[in-house]
Amino acid sequence: MKIGTTHLFVPGPTTVPEVVRRAMNVAMEDHRAPDFPDFVLDLLADLKRVFRLREGRVLLFPGSATGAWEAAISNCLDRGDRVLMARHGHFSHLWVDMARRLGLDVVCHDVEWGEGVPVEAFERSLRADPTIKAVFVTHNETATGVTSDVATVRRAMDAAGSDALLLVDGVSSVGSLDFRQDDWGVDVAVAGSQKGFMLPAGLAMLGVSEKALAAAERSSTERCYFAFRDMIAANDVGYFPYTPPLPLLHGLRASLDRILDEGMDDVAARHHRLGEGVRQGVKAWGLDLCALSPRWYSDTVTAVRVPAGVDGAAVCRTAYHRYRTSFGGGLGKVAGRVFRIGHLGDVNEVSCLTALAAAEMALLDVGVDLEAGAGVAAAQAYYRQALADEEAADAPWPPAGTRLTAVL
Amino acid sequence: MKIGTTHLFVPGPTTVPEVVRRAMNVAMEDHRAPDFPDFVLDLLADLKRVFRLREGRVLLFPGSATGAWEAAISNCLDRGDRVLMARHGHFSHLWVDMARRLGLDVVCHDVEWGEGVPVEAFERSLRADPTIKAVFVTHNETATGVTSDVATVRRAMDAAGSDALLLVDGVSSVGSLDFRQDDWGVDVAVAGSQKGFMLPAGLAMLGVSEKALAAAERSSTERCYFAFRDMIAANDVGYFPYTPPLPLLHGLRASLDRILDEGMDDVAARHHRLGEGVRQGVKAWGLDLCALSPRWYSDTVTAVRVPAGVDGAAVCRTAYHRYRTSFGGGLGKVAGRVFRIGHLGDVNEVSCLTALAAAEMALLDVGVDLEAGAGVAAAQAYYRQALADEEAADAPWPPAGTRLTAVL
Amino acid sequence: MKIGTTHLFVPGPTTVPEVVRRAMNVAMEDHRAPDFPDFVLDLLADLKRVFRLREGRVLLFPGSATGAWEAAISNCLDRGDRVLMARHGHFSHLWVDMARRLGLDVVCHDVEWGEGVPVEAFERSLRADPTIKAVFVTHNETATGVTSDVATVRRAMDAAGSDALLLVDGVSSVGSLDFRQDDWGVDVAVAGSQKGFMLPAGLAMLGVSEKALAAAERSSTERCYFAFRDMIAANDVGYFPYTPPLPLLHGLRASLDRILDEGMDDVAARHHRLGEGVRQGVKAWGLDLCALSPRWYSDTVTAVRVPAGVDGAAVCRTAYHRYRTSFGGGLGKVAGRVFRIGHLGDVNEVSCLTALAAAEMALLDVGVDLEAGAGVAAAQAYYRQALADEEAADAPWPPAGTRLTAVL
Amino acid sequence: MKIGTTHLFVPGPTTVPEVVRRAMNVAMEDHRAPDFPDFVLDLLADLKRVFRLREGRVLLFPGSATGAWEAAISNCLDRGDRVLMARHGHFSHLWVDMARRLGLDVVCHDVEWGEGVPVEAFERSLRADPTIKAVFVTHNETATGVTSDVATVRRAMDAAGSDALLLVDGVSSVGSLDFRQDDWGVDVAVAGSQKGFMLPAGLAMLGVSEKALAAAERSSTERCYFAFRDMIAANDVGYFPYTPPLPLLHGLRASLDRILDEGMDDVAARHHRLGEGVRQGVKAWGLDLCALSPRWYSDTVTAVRVPAGVDGAAVCRTAYHRYRTSFGGGLGKVAGRVFRIGHLGDVNEVSCLTALAAAEMALLDVGVDLEAGAGVAAAQAYYRQALADEEAADAPWPPAGTRLTAVL
Repeated sequence: MKIGTTHLFVPGPTTVPEVVRRAMNVAMEDHRAPDFPDFVLDLLADLKRVFRLREGRVLLFPGSATGAWEAAISNCLDRGDRVLMARHGHFSHLWVDMARRLGLDVVCHDVEWGEGVPVEAFERSLRADPTIKAVFVTHNETATGVTSDVATVRRAMDAAGSDALLLVDGVSSVGSLDFRQDDWGVDVAVAGSQKGFMLPAGLAMLGVSEKALAAAERSSTERCYFAFRDMIAANDVGYFPYTPPLPLLHGLRASLDRILDEGMDDVAARHHRLGEGVRQGVKAWGLDLCALSPRWYSDTVTAVRVPAGVDGAAVCRTAYHRYRTSFGGGLGKVAGRVFRIGHLGDVNEVSCLTALAAAEMALLDVGVDLEAGAGVAAAQAYYRQALADEEAADAPWPPAGTRLTAVL
Repeated sequence: MKIGTTHLFVPGPTTVPEVVRRAMNVAMEDHRAPDFPDFVLDLLADLKRVFRLREGRVLLFPGSATGAWEAAISNCLDRGDRVLMARHGHFSHLWVDMARRLGLDVVCHDVEWGEGVPVEAFERSLRADPTIKAVFVTHNETATGVTSDVATVRRAMDAAGSDALLLVDGVSSVGSLDFRQDDWGVDVAVAGSQKGFMLPAGLAMLGVSEKALAAAERSSTERCYFAFRDMIAANDVGYFPYTPPLPLLHGLRASLDRILDEGMDDVAARHHRLGEGVRQGVKAWGLDLCALSPRWYSDTVTAVRVPAGVDGAAVCRTAYHRYRTSFGGGLGKVAGRVFRIGHLGDVNEVSCLTALAAAEMALLDVGVDLEAGAGVAAAQAYYRQALADEEAADAPWPPAGTRLTAVL
Repeated sequence: MKIGTTHLFVPGPTTVPEVVRRAMNVAMEDHRAPDFPDFVLDLLADLKRVFRLREGRVLLFPGSATGAWEAAISNCLDRGDRVLMARHGHFSHLWVDMARRLGLDVVCHDVEWGEGVPVEAFERSLRADPTIKAVFVTHNETATGVTSDVATVRRAMDAAGSDALLLVDGVSSVGSLDFRQDDWGVDVAVAGSQKGFMLPAGLAMLGVSEKALAAAERSSTERCYFAFRDMIAANDVGYFPYTPPLPLLHGLRASLDRILDEGMDDVAARHHRLGEGVRQGVKAWGLDLCALSPRWYSDTVTAVRVPAGVDGAAVCRTAYHRYRTSFGGGLGKVAGRVFRIGHLGDVNEVSCLTALAAAEMALLDVGVDLEAGAGVAAAQAYYRQALADEEAADAPWPPAGTRLTAVL
Repeated sequence: MKIGTTHLFVPGPTTVPEVVRRAMNVAMEDHRAPDFPDFVLDLLADLKRVFRLREGRVLLFPGSATGAWEAAISNCLDRGDRVLMARHGHFSHLWVDMARRLGLDVVCHDVEWGEGVPVEAFERSLRADPTIKAVFVTHNETATGVTSDVATVRRAMDAAGSDALLLVDGVSSVGSLDFRQDDWGVDVAVAGSQKGFMLPAGLAMLGVSEKALAAAERSSTERCYFAFRDMIAANDVGYFPYTPPLPLLHGLRASLDRILDEGMDDVAARHHRLGEGVRQGVKAWGLDLCALSPRWYSDTVTAVRVPAGVDGAAVCRTAYHRYRTSFGGGLGKVAGRVFRIGHLGDVNEVSCLTALAAAEMALLDVGVDLEAGAGVAAAQAYYRQALADEEAADAPWPPAGTRLTAVL
């Protein structure tokens, strides 16, 4: 018997906010109706605000984010093109694998799992090889909880005089972490609906710069379903080239409203605050993060190393079966050695305490030596201070528009 | 901006389980259709299993549980009838008030808030006054977190040779605490949809014994909307005398399936386990319960006394505004002196830790001196032990029917 | 197997619009939260706009509309009060029955079923008996499809110098037909959620004038659940005296937005247009309405007399089982002699054609001699003309804000 | 203002049945949870029953059916492979276009729009050119309402001694028309969620024979997102290689239950009955079908030719704006010359009458000379007879399990 809410702390799919869930509860409609474009064109325009993309376009393909990875490659590059990539976690590993299978000539920098993109090494490669057509960056490596610095990659590319395209996997960053497609000179930013956008999976998203759009016009790679050109031709008049997933589009409308209403900066600040609290908790347990240095700490997912002799998968299994709590397991090279706490999307401080409280029990059950409640206490202290500071800086108390009625 | 789930720990309305929520997402239908009775009659039969009522009937009126209080009185008693009641919390207070307003002659025993029904005093009253027509018991006083012992009231009535009706407010007990209408000789048990039944408010429920049905035939009190007779006449052929709230009926179907699938004994055991963990947490804070003795401890709601000088309402306000967590405030005589944690319905161990973690922050913020994390730790210890024991007693591990696939 | 939509044409519960359905898909929340009153007070204010009530209040009780009938009586009148009522259909019959059971002294005018309230007879009674405390009017008798003229009843009362209260059953008129509580001097208007408000049943609504509020202060009838005073005390600070049905309140928010956005006059005009089309269809079948004169024609429900020798219930049964279409059966005196087509709430022209098309098949199947398609054709002709006129009068074509994109 | 239901008669997305809609209203969950495979493996097994595929597999990709077209090509064929296709409507045209863009050497038979696959010509081509690696058939051409005979194509292939793969577009046939993957020797059958499966778009489905699976192992075409091999490796243990669209999977569970409960033969028989009624209606209007011969008539979509001088798009626009009814417009070569009525999925007889009634008004409004009501009447006559026959053959009346309660 499954009793009570399942407490969901995988780094995607994330909890769908009530307002978004409500918005998806729709009857079907004609996606070729004359007033459908009003709806679509507003969506596409607001998506650009979330990608922080002024020029260029955001494209939405029915599919998962893996499809967006493929769309980025097959539209903007030709088979045989040399590209620069780093491999430092399961998802960057998979993107390298895809690039090779799709025929790219990948210059791959292997980096320890727990570190981010090696910017200096990238710059050296770019200087050494001016034929590199594209640089790939996994902004937030979900498998290790590592955020790389995209802006410095852009600066390294510029310093090296490269005119390569900059392709960024923003699946677990766009809509949650600070992400600035224009400012950072990102040519293609890949995202999916099931992370910061707080929707079910099913929409593959790409922010595409003018430069990347031009590259897509030149590329000769065969493609059809994910072809930018067909999508653009339909989008220009407010339609899709094939039937779109309507509940997700309506959910996206609500999600964009929520994100833009909170404000991009506040969304990022909240994720930072939540992530920092979780890290304080992990520190109080005496455990290490998978991320090897504070400069790599991710504000959307925390991968925790379990002590030697403990099986990370057992933490997840115990949490799931005994405590109805879902964490992410270790993937690839770190399978069994980490477990992951997702804290992105529709989460708040108390949600993070829930995650820590459940993790503590599972860790204790599988034999990790830690003090029960210690992680929760550390995070509580951080959150109490952070929220008090925020209110002090920020706001009348109680919030304006709230009636001062005593709680009955 | 409301970000993230609101963590709901009021003692009703309780969280609606996903399966119930799904079931309520219905289109309207004709409530006089020829196949509607199949649906209704099964519902009514299964409700009897939850009330543990073999003879008699369960009646469902569109309304809140307060309406069921009134229905119990107006159907089974006449104006001027002498009845025996106790007042030991806000809800028992309100029922006394209603009984008087509806014209009953109430013999009222006032008891300290934090204690339960005074069985010995009741027995004395019954012996002294054979004209008493009904005894009222608030099984679980939601305002103070006090559960009274209905079975001993029945024994006292029998010992006193009373043939009064036994009317029980089971609003926050039926479907969650151990409740046995037949075994305890309860003539009318009042319940509502928004507590143990895990639905929105809107269904007033009454379990009615054959004796109470007979009394209803004799009573001359004017009534119409809540008249048992009209409801029974319609129910007999599977209908309602007026349009019922269809989403609630469909939700009730799913809720009954969930409750009966878990099993009545397991439901009660789970609530006991959850409540006990919360009480361990409160004890670790060094705070007192409103319930004055372990014999009164409620497994569905815990009312916590705040220290002198602290405003209980401020705990609720802080939790709500700062931590998006809803607790129940103090009501009536204990307003400002307690706050209440609901732990009934679709809750599990981790939910209760969430409540404790949020409460700790709010208590600290309003100046209560306690150790952060201490309550969570105490509950964790209890839950870990309790669940380990349960599994040992109970079950192959992992649960049968679960594939042994490693978490990827 | 139930395949395909059930086509719902009972006169309540009516089809819930998508936007309302979506709004009801909510998680539970604390109904005593400090920001809950903002939500409630706006609802109550907007309800007054739909009742067209400037002074006074609208009260919402969890319950069905039958409860609102009872609330009107038990709050505003005393047992033994003499009241004036008419009986001309099943629902007016039931209200009379309730009034008597609740102890009123009913002066009842029996009128042929198919006619409306006998205003002249009412005026004579009022002149003859100045002790009459209240006049009851069933604005729209749902059982016969008869709308009475409330304004003339008010004028008759005034002409007779009566200061009785005017109590109106607006269950199947408020929110759909033209209804003007202030202009018509209605003291209590009773409504329910499942008709013009396009919600599931579960909210009993009362529009109450200042005069009726004053009467409620004086009445000595015992009441508690439906007591205006308790509800008002809680409403004054934005709460309810007991847990309200939250999904219905959120649905009501969406419903009010829809109604007020369409506009009260346009809502009434649409219902007139829809009803007139249905009547044209019935006429083309060669069948009679239950309503005996055009002055009584209801724009929300059409009761159709079946020819002698035909069982009206068989029409409903055949439509339901064979054609998945729900019509209302004949009730009370006209059971078996009529079937009823509901056309209120979220309906449009094509919905009404659906009803006529299904009814034609069922009528033919049970042996009624009519020309298939004739009713549909008559309604089509009417609707085509009416919509063309409306557009000519009204609007640029296509609607402003609609992109002129060719349908792909 | 959009008032009342939009009457949806496009040939996809189709109306989502209530039971399916309910099933999609889910919270997110961990798609890598240990019990997720139980759910997935049952889904995949039951999908095979709908494709009528005993050997082989059904694969589900997040995407639209266009993606499934591409998956069929990129997995089973190599660039440069010669394939045999026919072009006789917009969707077969698009598949040819895709095949060419993806590098296939297409032998294309152009056929008049309104006819089906030219089996004799196919057989001649196959005899003439033994290098043909695959034969593509659009089973139901949604743009023209034409169903081709897949079984005869298989026989022609066998007669010609071809060992080519047989790839079939079953997007608007699988789950609605009679479709038998094994019996017809179909190697890849492409489907989508938004037609016969009665779900929103978002799942690309492929039924794949063992022979096609073997071909996929040999093909050297670059592919990754749509790679059978990756999907199969994950499916084998009950997972997906990337996050699947959870609401659609839960909806699919409910949809499969509905389809299998009705029974594949009964589903096909119902669609035939519904389609035949619509065709009777069109005939009564005096209009022609786009399908040029009864052998091509589609039971899921009827494309109606409008008279010379009339704009088919205007029929759709008028129906949409004035009557809130959505029809499909003409696509490609027949743009402006036809409009299309979808009658697949969760539809019944009365739904089809609704479509005809609305179409009649729109046709009259744009100047087509026809008798109002005539199409409805013809369909009514057909449906009444068909349902009476079915009941006579089939069933006690009323249906077993239905209480014989008189409609109140």
